[in-house]
Amino acid sequence: LERRKRKRMRRLLKAMHPAKIASLLETLTPAQRISVWQQIDEPLEQKVLSHLSPALRAQLTQEAGAGEDTEPSADATGAESTAGGADAADETQLRVVLEALESGKLKRIGRLFRKLHPARIAGLLESLPAADRAAAWDMVEHGRMGKVLRHLHEEVRRRLAAEMEQDDLVDAAREMAPDDLVDLIQDLPGDLGREILLTLNRRERERVESMLSYPEDSAGGLMNLDQIAVRADIKVGTLLRYLRLLEDLPPNTDKFYIVDRGNRYQGIVRARRVLTAKPETPIAELMETDFEPVAVDAPEADIARRFEAQDLISVPVVDPAGVLLGRITVDDVVDVIRDLAEHSMMGMAGLDEETDMFAPVVVSSRRRAVWLGINLVTAFLAAWVIGLFENTLEQVVALAVLMPIVASMGGIAGSQTLTLVIRGLAMGQLGTVNTSILLLKEIGIGLLNGLLWALVVAALAIVWFGNWAIGGIIAAAILLNLLCAALAGVLIPLILRRLGIDPALAGSVVLTTVTDVVGFFAFLGLATLLLL
Amino acid sequence: LERRKRKRMRRLLKAMHPAKIASLLETLTPAQRISVWQQIDEPLEQKVLSHLSPALRAQLTQEAGAGEDTEPSADATGAESTAGGADAADETQLRVVLEALESGKLKRIGRLFRKLHPARIAGLLESLPAADRAAAWDMVEHGRMGKVLRHLHEEVRRRLAAEMEQDDLVDAAREMAPDDLVDLIQDLPGDLGREILLTLNRRERERVESMLSYPEDSAGGLMNLDQIAVRADIKVGTLLRYLRLLEDLPPNTDKFYIVDRGNRYQGIVRARRVLTAKPETPIAELMETDFEPVAVDAPEADIARRFEAQDLISVPVVDPAGVLLGRITVDDVVDVIRDLAEHSMMGMAGLDEETDMFAPVVVSSRRRAVWLGINLVTAFLAAWVIGLFENTLEQVVALAVLMPIVASMGGIAGSQTLTLVIRGLAMGQLGTVNTSILLLKEIGIGLLNGLLWALVVAALAIVWFGNWAIGGIIAAAILLNLLCAALAGVLIPLILRRLGIDPALAGSVVLTTVTDVVGFFAFLGLATLLLL
Repeated sequence: LERRKRKRMRRLLKAMHPAKIASLLETLTPAQRISVWQQIDEPLEQKVLSHLSPALRAQLTQEAGAGEDTEPSADATGAESTAGGADAADETQLRVVLEALESGKLKRIGRLFRKLHPARIAGLLESLPAADRAAAWDMVEHGRMGKVLRHLHEEVRRRLAAEMEQDDLVDAAREMAPDDLVDLIQDLPGDLGREILLTLNRRERERVESMLSYPEDSAGGLMNLDQIAVRADIKVGTLLRYLRLLEDLPPNTDKFYIVDRGNRYQGIVRARRVLTAKPETPIAELMETDFEPVAVDAPEADIARRFEAQDLISVPVVDPAGVLLGRITVDDVVDVIRDLAEHSMMGMAGLDEETDMFAPVVVSSRRRAVWLGINLVTAFLAAWVIGLFENTLEQVVALAVLMPIVASMGGIAGSQTLTLVIRGLAMGQLGTVNTSILLLKEIGIGLLNGLLWALVVAALAIVWFGNWAIGGIIAAAILLNLLCAALAGVLIPLILRRLGIDPALAGSVVLTTVTDVVGFFAFLGLATLLLL
Repeated sequence: LERRKRKRMRRLLKAMHPAKIASLLETLTPAQRISVWQQIDEPLEQKVLSHLSPALRAQLTQEAGAGEDTEPSADATGAESTAGGADAADETQLRVVLEALESGKLKRIGRLFRKLHPARIAGLLESLPAADRAAAWDMVEHGRMGKVLRHLHEEVRRRLAAEMEQDDLVDAAREMAPDDLVDLIQDLPGDLGREILLTLNRRERERVESMLSYPEDSAGGLMNLDQIAVRADIKVGTLLRYLRLLEDLPPNTDKFYIVDRGNRYQGIVRARRVLTAKPETPIAELMETDFEPVAVDAPEADIARRFEAQDLISVPVVDPAGVLLGRITVDDVVDVIRDLAEHSMMGMAGLDEETDMFAPVVVSSRRRAVWLGINLVTAFLAAWVIGLFENTLEQVVALAVLMPIVASMGGIAGSQTLTLVIRGLAMGQLGTVNTSILLLKEIGIGLLNGLLWALVVAALAIVWFGNWAIGGIIAAAILLNLLCAALAGVLIPLILRRLGIDPALAGSVVLTTVTDVVGFFAFLGLATLLLL
């Protein structure tokens, strides 16, 4: 009855006759009994109960009742969580899940999940240790697995999907919107993705396959195929009658697209204009022809910027010939915006924005080891520079005490400039035209702050070591290093980008190398020249 | 004719009679003439031209034509920029603006701006040096200033608004949506804000004043007042007739709100349901009563998380008694999401997410000096630790060469953990319940990576200095520092948060202090024990 075997047991129990399960339960010890009971699906429960002795029935229903007891609170906090002040509620839900996993009372998780939004379930799953996720994942209703998968980060999704029964995965895939399905297939090993494709009907498969042919981070990878396209020669009343036939519209339908006979994009009609127009108005009268469509190969960063700037809900996607292919909606763009912003932050620490916080130790270790190794090269470079001046250090040991200050001040100042530049690049506000303006400004800041802190550090060093020469040397070294840091902070990301290297990822390592090497070299070099 | 005087000249020219301007133009040198001509408003141009001699007229219109020449390219790239592949287009536009500012041909900026989206104008203004912004800002059409202001970052907006004529500012304010106006007033000095309030009519003023009473980062500060609320006892047809009276609906109207007689929130009706329903359907039949409203004091981070999770376009905001106050729309939430994500990144470098990249040197220097000063305390603490072992260093100078390696490996490993935890906290995935799980995992990673890199560094140190003892000492110190880094990376942000300090802002300084002090102390301390 270990955790790992639960899954097999669940499957066994599903296949058994209720009477047989009942007789099995009667033969077990009370502890085992409760454990098995937790694995029985809700619909089976009643049938099994009817086959049990009254005493046992009372015991097991009481057990279920005890589980029920925790619910009112979870319920109340669930409602709160949507209204705000969510932190406490989130904690309570997480505690319920962790305790249920601990005690093996998985049904409680199922009951909790049934009341939560798929996105919240995804959040809870990501908050669990990687090893426990599969058990909790099994308690998600099958009809909602697709929706939960859509809200998971890439790494977690891939791992859970890989552990799923193929049939369950295919079921989950069937409920997903095509754009989310495309994301999922891109995350799965090739075979599994193909299996899922084969279960779709021909029309769906062709659509998904065409979407798979676009890069994940382009308009084609972001778009969905649920747009409503009409011709310009109809009237509002006709459109409304057509919409009534559909019964419900896809979410985020803020506009309808106008196409010609060849399905070429002509313009848009906003839903709000349709709502306020008279039925006899021709659609052509409401149509806006100056709304620019997005090219299918447009990069997602550009699209995100446009959504943000123009406050859009949806945009049409067209192929090079102007044929309407699909539309991109704000819910997917919000994810892109968050990913792009997180990419800069996580990248500076050598992490991926899709990283699973609770990934297994070995997996995380391997990934982070690479980053530490790269930084070790930097550290040894700095050590080598210090090594050049071993002779000097031997004679004036105070230099060894003060030298980290020079390197660290340079590193801090440089990382401020670097962060500003990386954000400026991400927001598209920094091009070759205004680089020189920024460079001058940053050098100005480096000069002012360099002078200020050079004087402060020099004064402190003189007081500490009673040596005027060391004060002068450290002041010069700090000023020099802050100027270099400003220069490096502006130029490194720009050069990296031109070389096709992601500045958010490599920028901080290269910058630290520069400020360490310059800092140590300037300080110890000047000391060697002036003190020996 | 300096830049600063242009504004005064523009005002003078506006008040002058066209004939007078014409005669003034005739008396100037050609260079001065063109410069003055650039300051004349478009509507005046024709009148002035008719008063000029034919030769002069030809010269000036040719000049205007030369300006026109740059436009086709700007136009073409402008269209591209919305379709994607925007970088080149953005560069071209920025170059046009910078060159125009350089040569004083401000009309070109005005012509370019007239073709651009207000958000793009805001982006261009932010890409300019702070000193040149006011001149470009003057070329924004007065009717669009409010829209551009809305898209600027706080710091830039405040500075431009402070430089505007009060009348212009009031005009701009009148076009803004109440939520944006509230933002603007919160950024302005108190007097100016009150002046703007006084120009509104009583009903608007009361609304804005009530919104000003909520904190900027709460639902009350985010909400807008343009919701459409109806009663549940009407029919779809009645709603449609009412909407037709409005002619157009506010942007992002994806739902209508149902209220009772006391304006208390009852539920929602989605616009898409209205579009697909028959006119005789009662609204009550389409109403969803389980859509949770947002409390007016809910923090913006919770709201952003809900929008992201549930893919929302708008939510109703209610007061504690359940009265519908307004609604929050996705366009404002996108800004919040971006700000929150940027806050973590910028905070780690001691910067504010509203920072103006091109702020004047002195302003930026002062702000960054604080951060450098805080870090200097850290650096001196590390130096003090090294100073404790001056004696040891004097005898084994190799230690001085290797010691930065120990500190730097700890710093890198710690900042990876810290970044992960800060993001986990921002996403609400880390509570007290699962902290211990994460802590164990991070310590596991620290142990594995510590062992790996301890061996590597030890081997390198032994090869370099031919000293086995030093190799052993550095290995032990690195292992210890990586374990401490894992512990500190998890606990520091959690402790800071409990103390009410922003972990994104203070986390990295405190972490560096820990890894530096532990690294130097472990390495030099062990060396003192074992080598002397």
